Amino acid sequence: MAGNTFGHILRLTTYGESHGVSVGGILDGVPAGLTLDIEKIQLDLDRRKPGQSAIVTQRKESDTIRFKSGIFEGKTTGMPIAFEVVNADQKSKDYGHIKGKYRPSHADYTYDEKYGHRDYRGGGRSSARETVSWVAAGAIAKQIIPFIQIKAYTFSVGTLQLSDDQNYNLEQVESNIVRCPDQDIADKMIAHIKTVRKNGDTVGGQVKCVVEHVPIGLGDPVFEKLQANLAKAMLSINAVKGFEYGSGFSGTQLYGSQHNDIFEESGRTKTNHSGGIQGGISNGMPIYFKVAFKPVATLMQSQRSIDQSHQAVEITGKGRHDPCVVPRAIPIVEAMTALVLADAYLSHKTTQV
Amino acid sequence: MAGNTFGHILRLTTYGESHGVSVGGILDGVPAGLTLDIEKIQLDLDRRKPGQSAIVTQRKESDTIRFKSGIFEGKTTGMPIAFEVVNADQKSKDYGHIKGKYRPSHADYTYDEKYGHRDYRGGGRSSARETVSWVAAGAIAKQIIPFIQIKAYTFSVGTLQLSDDQNYNLEQVESNIVRCPDQDIADKMIAHIKTVRKNGDTVGGQVKCVVEHVPIGLGDPVFEKLQANLAKAMLSINAVKGFEYGSGFSGTQLYGSQHNDIFEESGRTKTNHSGGIQGGISNGMPIYFKVAFKPVATLMQSQRSIDQSHQAVEITGKGRHDPCVVPRAIPIVEAMTALVLADAYLSHKTTQV
Amino acid sequence: MAGNTFGHILRLTTYGESHGVSVGGILDGVPAGLTLDIEKIQLDLDRRKPGQSAIVTQRKESDTIRFKSGIFEGKTTGMPIAFEVVNADQKSKDYGHIKGKYRPSHADYTYDEKYGHRDYRGGGRSSARETVSWVAAGAIAKQIIPFIQIKAYTFSVGTLQLSDDQNYNLEQVESNIVRCPDQDIADKMIAHIKTVRKNGDTVGGQVKCVVEHVPIGLGDPVFEKLQANLAKAMLSINAVKGFEYGSGFSGTQLYGSQHNDIFEESGRTKTNHSGGIQGGISNGMPIYFKVAFKPVATLMQSQRSIDQSHQAVEITGKGRHDPCVVPRAIPIVEAMTALVLADAYLSHKTTQV
Amino acid sequence: MAGNTFGHILRLTTYGESHGVSVGGILDGVPAGLTLDIEKIQLDLDRRKPGQSAIVTQRKESDTIRFKSGIFEGKTTGMPIAFEVVNADQKSKDYGHIKGKYRPSHADYTYDEKYGHRDYRGGGRSSARETVSWVAAGAIAKQIIPFIQIKAYTFSVGTLQLSDDQNYNLEQVESNIVRCPDQDIADKMIAHIKTVRKNGDTVGGQVKCVVEHVPIGLGDPVFEKLQANLAKAMLSINAVKGFEYGSGFSGTQLYGSQHNDIFEESGRTKTNHSGGIQGGISNGMPIYFKVAFKPVATLMQSQRSIDQSHQAVEITGKGRHDPCVVPRAIPIVEAMTALVLADAYLSHKTTQV
Repeated sequence: MAGNTFGHILRLTTYGESHGVSVGGILDGVPAGLTLDIEKIQLDLDRRKPGQSAIVTQRKESDTIRFKSGIFEGKTTGMPIAFEVVNADQKSKDYGHIKGKYRPSHADYTYDEKYGHRDYRGGGRSSARETVSWVAAGAIAKQIIPFIQIKAYTFSVGTLQLSDDQNYNLEQVESNIVRCPDQDIADKMIAHIKTVRKNGDTVGGQVKCVVEHVPIGLGDPVFEKLQANLAKAMLSINAVKGFEYGSGFSGTQLYGSQHNDIFEESGRTKTNHSGGIQGGISNGMPIYFKVAFKPVATLMQSQRSIDQSHQAVEITGKGRHDPCVVPRAIPIVEAMTALVLADAYLSHKTTQV
Repeated sequence: MAGNTFGHILRLTTYGESHGVSVGGILDGVPAGLTLDIEKIQLDLDRRKPGQSAIVTQRKESDTIRFKSGIFEGKTTGMPIAFEVVNADQKSKDYGHIKGKYRPSHADYTYDEKYGHRDYRGGGRSSARETVSWVAAGAIAKQIIPFIQIKAYTFSVGTLQLSDDQNYNLEQVESNIVRCPDQDIADKMIAHIKTVRKNGDTVGGQVKCVVEHVPIGLGDPVFEKLQANLAKAMLSINAVKGFEYGSGFSGTQLYGSQHNDIFEESGRTKTNHSGGIQGGISNGMPIYFKVAFKPVATLMQSQRSIDQSHQAVEITGKGRHDPCVVPRAIPIVEAMTALVLADAYLSHKTTQV
Repeated sequence: MAGNTFGHILRLTTYGESHGVSVGGILDGVPAGLTLDIEKIQLDLDRRKPGQSAIVTQRKESDTIRFKSGIFEGKTTGMPIAFEVVNADQKSKDYGHIKGKYRPSHADYTYDEKYGHRDYRGGGRSSARETVSWVAAGAIAKQIIPFIQIKAYTFSVGTLQLSDDQNYNLEQVESNIVRCPDQDIADKMIAHIKTVRKNGDTVGGQVKCVVEHVPIGLGDPVFEKLQANLAKAMLSINAVKGFEYGSGFSGTQLYGSQHNDIFEESGRTKTNHSGGIQGGISNGMPIYFKVAFKPVATLMQSQRSIDQSHQAVEITGKGRHDPCVVPRAIPIVEAMTALVLADAYLSHKTTQV
Repeated sequence: MAGNTFGHILRLTTYGESHGVSVGGILDGVPAGLTLDIEKIQLDLDRRKPGQSAIVTQRKESDTIRFKSGIFEGKTTGMPIAFEVVNADQKSKDYGHIKGKYRPSHADYTYDEKYGHRDYRGGGRSSARETVSWVAAGAIAKQIIPFIQIKAYTFSVGTLQLSDDQNYNLEQVESNIVRCPDQDIADKMIAHIKTVRKNGDTVGGQVKCVVEHVPIGLGDPVFEKLQANLAKAMLSINAVKGFEYGSGFSGTQLYGSQHNDIFEESGRTKTNHSGGIQGGISNGMPIYFKVAFKPVATLMQSQRSIDQSHQAVEITGKGRHDPCVVPRAIPIVEAMTALVLADAYLSHKTTQV
């Protein structure tokens, strides 16, 4: 049972391979009557696109979005919104050398085993190019819930990391190319990524996301809890290995008497170990979570591997790849967050009559 | 939009409040012709039930399951399997004192805000009693995929923890009441939980789950990736704050040249940082992941809180609660894993004709 | 992929075989805060139950409903509502004689072929007893949309039928046991059914349903059109062979100049060939449709058939069966209509923000 | 909750307005490894397209399909198949005169009331142009189940109709422009449609569909019965007012002793009043059903109507419209049938392990 649809009331269905005609999707369930800001959508795509800075892949794709339906005279009509982003700069010949070879820690092997037939060019549908559609749809989702503010940023690159206890000025996130709100650490991260690339290697990192002004009541127990859908959304992103919200893994070391969030009379809580969610439902406090990204698998080094007949081969990455996925992952994390929250927001409208 | 159904082809729908008549559910999509071992189902329920040892809640519930449909002459018929577990030992009067009060870090406040009307007895539907149905359904799911072995165990309690680099004999998990495969550390964990309880406090911990003999090909990109559904399943469990699989959060500190799993000619890999999944699809290597549980929120101590009119109140837990949720969470983690894997297994049958 | 769930926002999942422990279901998505009238639910079950009159099956089942969850202090909580109706008067030995035989025009053969293993007692899950749960859920659905009035009645029995051009007083429907609002024709229908039963035979008929006070705007193009979901709901009922709404099949003989419904300035239309739905969306005019029921397949006559090894056998119905399904189908048609409309009503809440 | 997705395992999601950029869709769940015959897909589109004969609308659209994904080296990959058909000959100015006016028996009024904002050009998404995508997807679905033969034809136009008791040579269906297998009646139908068009009027009709070589076992009780999904599929088509299968409405006049289908030792039945389905599951006999189409609402005559401020207006159809929808509906009925059957076929694969 194929699974190319995300969400319940707000539903994104996507298509496209990295070296096919285009990538795109249909976003169904957008309420009627919204005045869409198309520039904001393109802006998020630009934050995701390759070639935007010295520390990301140098592929050149304009990633210009074209809408096909669901918008009339500038407003949404309640009909499905289809969109397409043409694949402009695919160099399929970059991949001829890996046809029939399985790249280590890629999806080549599992796709071949599962489907028996695979578009090997650039990873086909397992490529991160797929997230173009996610960012486009997420940028629409943000406009369904304009009162909610979603801000993701680079929390760590390798072992270089921010602190959980410090407040960062999230307005600074876009002021540097690594999207880290602390300029000193950002500079170190940028230098580190450049070194890693020079070595033909890659490095992992973490993204933190903070969501403010969330209305109380979003999330539907027991199987559509807000944190469960956020976790699913994040683990859907290529290269993600972990998700934690609120106190996360470190909270497991606390006692209940330390961890409990005591109410103020306003209904807000003094601390926020809960991460803005109680019982699967938003409680009005900020939602925050972290997402772990492994290092990109494509290396500009020679690696041992096997081919389709399980013979040992050597493989070396060609093409243009990211030495660290985190800076370009920021708008992707935000987009998936927006899809989850907008869906939960629309869903909540049916809770009481 | 209420969300009391989990899964796609294999679908569990549950009902029930902790102090209502019963908890139970309907499991739809179980293939016809399976000979069900009912004792094994009851055994998993017994591993979850309260009162089973000195370090868990002392509530007494027999948690005996009764099946209503879908099984005929010992075999599944392909029809929905309904089951019910009666709530025997609920002491609703234990909760009279909290009617109208919001317990810190519980779902009382968010349920009231979302629904406007709430069954306050024992947490109602936000109670972990709900997981009785999950364990029952998961025990059926295990029998759909008997060739897969799912083993969860206590990885940490507070700061007491096992090592990721050591191989434990998972046959030992059930040999102690904390369900930790290292007896020395298990003894320390048990002693620690007893101390915590004596203090009227609670403590968090982590569960690790290892899944072996998974066929290659389970999981459906791009939005039903195996790890995404596992993450959703785990974050659906009460008190869970995080999920990581394979190299997880620590893998973010590695270079690609360290992290990539090199193929052997068998198709297996020398290392398994990938955690048995590539591109959202199982690759035949063991799947392993960790789940973070916060400390239980109900304390046998006095805490400050507020009531429904947002006035300050004092609140003290009554009743019988777990000082540490982890030992009883083991069968729950296994059950949710089984539901995800059995669903993916059935789903995979439609991939090729 | 099993299919025991109906609806999208309001979702009914059912279970149960006619000679199992019980039939029942879980209704998810009922909004919180509704004061449920349980007597009205039981009343609809009583309208469906066997043994209620001289022209229906003489099985005795009290069909008393018991609720398990989702209602607290008389009000819905937004949690799933589980309910159960125990099978009291099943005489499984009535079916011993058909074990291994395929009754003509029953589901015995197809269930065996599809599932390989079947509960043969009383038709198992293919029995019309399943509709107990539909009526219970529909009676709840009616209370979600109390402003809508749903009235079904017997339009024909065999060749005895009402006129489409006459207005009947639908308050009279329950005044006779065949549920036909014209007492003269009702008397003839009743006499005819008695004769048919005496002959050990059965007869078909049609149900007409009229729905008034439907808000404008229910139904979701293009694949959740109101008439499409009504059609699916009706064709889900055992023995139904056809559905038409508005002008239906006879409208195919008209010219557009005759068929078009001309608007009045109020927005209502002078005629209502459209049957209250335009473009899949309710237009505020009454919705009306007809449902065709074939004659019941179980005869108190000897019939030729085959057994599981495809050998010719003789088969004679035992037990207690309906000579005409229509009188007891009235509450079932209403219930399925209510489920569709309440689902569409909740769904419509997400159309605009 | 928007509803632009059809099907469960095989899922079609569509987009597009009649005068927007294009219409198209994403078909998810097509099994991997099928060699797709693209010409056959285009052929079905050509059977649906306007301008194909003297008795249909004279709009000129080439309706050439372009695929965007999911096909590699001529074979399906298991990935979603996206496709697009550009709107070439839309003359939006044909609709300027109806902006703000509600055409009788169109969806103008209900869309405005439901969504508050509507693409009025050519009916927007309520246009029958939407069915381009249905036909494209259905043509792919046919190739998933090539062993099943689906044949629809014109059964009646106005009062001119075929007989249910006669066997027609369905190879003749495409030999005339009205798609009726009896050439004499076809000639009368064609002449009648020409007269109707000359009068600026329209006329209704019925389509009959016969499906042969259906495997036993398709359909999933109790809410995904094969006939229920066929009914939903047919009632989703614009202008459809009714559906009946097997003995249909006329079967309601029979006795059970006449209606029951007696088994032969082969497992087939002597008669086929059941229409190839028992208990919601195909029984291996031919499936046949009829679909009622009302006369097209757009007339080339002056009609009274109202505008958005509910003032009386006169309205006259401009543009180029079908005098009778039935000839072009034939491939649409077939396509929706194929989508239902292919979905049921894939679904059936999960019934037994």
